[in-house]
Amino acid sequence: MERIEYLKRQVREIQDFPTKGILFRDLTTLFKDPRSVELATDLLVQRYVGKGITKVIGIESRGFIFGSILAYKLNAGFVPIRKKGKLPAEKLQYSYQLEYGQDSIEIHKDALLPDDKVLLHDDLLATGGTTLAALELIKQLGVTDIRICFLLELAQLQGRDKIGADYDVFSLLEY
Amino acid sequence: MERIEYLKRQVREIQDFPTKGILFRDLTTLFKDPRSVELATDLLVQRYVGKGITKVIGIESRGFIFGSILAYKLNAGFVPIRKKGKLPAEKLQYSYQLEYGQDSIEIHKDALLPDDKVLLHDDLLATGGTTLAALELIKQLGVTDIRICFLLELAQLQGRDKIGADYDVFSLLEY
Repeated sequence: MERIEYLKRQVREIQDFPTKGILFRDLTTLFKDPRSVELATDLLVQRYVGKGITKVIGIESRGFIFGSILAYKLNAGFVPIRKKGKLPAEKLQYSYQLEYGQDSIEIHKDALLPDDKVLLHDDLLATGGTTLAALELIKQLGVTDIRICFLLELAQLQGRDKIGADYDVFSLLEY
Repeated sequence: MERIEYLKRQVREIQDFPTKGILFRDLTTLFKDPRSVELATDLLVQRYVGKGITKVIGIESRGFIFGSILAYKLNAGFVPIRKKGKLPAEKLQYSYQLEYGQDSIEIHKDALLPDDKVLLHDDLLATGGTTLAALELIKQLGVTDIRICFLLELAQLQGRDKIGADYDVFSLLEY
């Protein structure tokens, strides 16, 4: 599909970031291109419009970028999942393993209601660790209607298998 | 104005965050309300539409939320200014003093062109330190046409005076 090819051409490849041997796919070159912002928005909105989504959740911080555009376009609220210590009100925390050490993310307890229809968004699906942690927080708030979307998926890392078949998972660009 | 009063009612006050004695104004309650997202977007867009804005710059991470919606609505590119170490390509860095210690922010060198018309966005104008640092980075890239907007301004902290009269500065909600 031509629009997908156009978007893929806006993604910049950077060798050895953040560490040696990693080929990093940099989306800032896509974000700064107005046509890409419009195209990516249209393609994602077309998938979720009319589904009754009430909240779009963005994972800090790059998930805030298209997460908030999607919330605006879908007439939904925007809910941030943030790194530890950033949210000011009553919250839930979930800790998960990284390759080295661990990380924690948080959500406000009053951010979601059990009958919300949620679209979880992050820019990148790699190993799926952060996504799984975010799903844990969302489920702890009683939400069961959950869709997930990414701008970019690194298929060889098999994050999709980790998330499992219970969810509707969509990635705009696959590598 | 009625719409501004509505938006102000969605901002939650939290005592003693992040430290004792601080009254924190929490925007997550506004973000999660679809009507607020729409209203705030309309009010900001109405101010900047037709001005030829080519790039909207959002400061990590809460500035990404409305920064990206504004970029989408104004048909501009979105450019993130990020904390140290997050951007993968060639970048400029600027360090600035905080109350305790210092902080550094970065921008990609190829994020802006000298003839870009820029709208710099952050959620909050407090003392203005981060905004000044961001302006420094933008000016180092040769850009001269710069407007600045915030969702919320804490007027008593006089950040606006620190930014100076050279810029068009707008805050949606003032306290």
